[in-house]
Amino acid sequence: MAGTMAEPARDVLYLKDLYVGRHFTSGTHALDEQQITAFAHEFDPQPFHIDREAAKGTLFRGLVASVWYTAAITMLLQVESGLPIAGGIVGLGGELAWPTATRPGDVLHVESEVTDVVPSRSRPDRGTVTVRSETRNQRDEVVQRTTVKLLVPRRSTTDGMQAG
Amino acid sequence: MAGTMAEPARDVLYLKDLYVGRHFTSGTHALDEQQITAFAHEFDPQPFHIDREAAKGTLFRGLVASVWYTAAITMLLQVESGLPIAGGIVGLGGELAWPTATRPGDVLHVESEVTDVVPSRSRPDRGTVTVRSETRNQRDEVVQRTTVKLLVPRRSTTDGMQAG
Repeated sequence: MAGTMAEPARDVLYLKDLYVGRHFTSGTHALDEQQITAFAHEFDPQPFHIDREAAKGTLFRGLVASVWYTAAITMLLQVESGLPIAGGIVGLGGELAWPTATRPGDVLHVESEVTDVVPSRSRPDRGTVTVRSETRNQRDEVVQRTTVKLLVPRRSTTDGMQAG
Repeated sequence: MAGTMAEPARDVLYLKDLYVGRHFTSGTHALDEQQITAFAHEFDPQPFHIDREAAKGTLFRGLVASVWYTAAITMLLQVESGLPIAGGIVGLGGELAWPTATRPGDVLHVESEVTDVVPSRSRPDRGTVTVRSETRNQRDEVVQRTTVKLLVPRRSTTDGMQAG
């Protein structure tokens, strides 16, 4: 997904650019059964994630993606088109919920909103920004709800924040 | 990792088997740079996850794994050797924190403890179990702290829980 000619360069954002209520919408990502089962074979090898026939007899009544695949695709969308934060998206932790299962054929995108901005007292070059996101499918159902704290640099330096 | 001869079959656990304070320890998983960068290229393509040289100039002072890779390996350890729950590990949501970065050469394992067990009032065949886990590296540093709610079947049926 590296830059195509049609894709405009995005400005990266610093702490001063992020205010409560600022909203971001990512691009989309379409899921197919092969992607879902390949991830599950590697990281979450349970019948409802790897075997279409076996999955029919489970709680899910069919093949569903690992929630960690939904989380990984959400991250991909945020990195590529969702949150253009200077120095990258550095998550410290947060809350996750998966109200609806993700299935083959789903087309996901992420809607995000800044809900808190706190400059660091001890480190003048950075702050913490809380972002609430919803990963939605093509029916606008929420497949993942995330509230995460991110480390954001205060101003431009060559590498975003000073190491250490 | 499907059953080798040396690997004893594990009993699967139902709601009645899970009580507050019950503890589980997973096997281990060793990480190398290739695994870390392969995951990041696919899901979290940021310099500090994909490029050893570029990573030196960042906050992390070197290559670190995507936190979603740490989460995925934690899930793998739970599925393979951590939490033998009947019907599989079905997560509803929870909290995550990543207090220490995961780096090439780290050997991870997961320590888990049941912190709450709530039979469902409306669905007599299931309940919700809260599990607090720490994913630790070879120096016993916590790289991921997780509190997650899991759906657990109350008793044996052919497929764990009734669909729907």
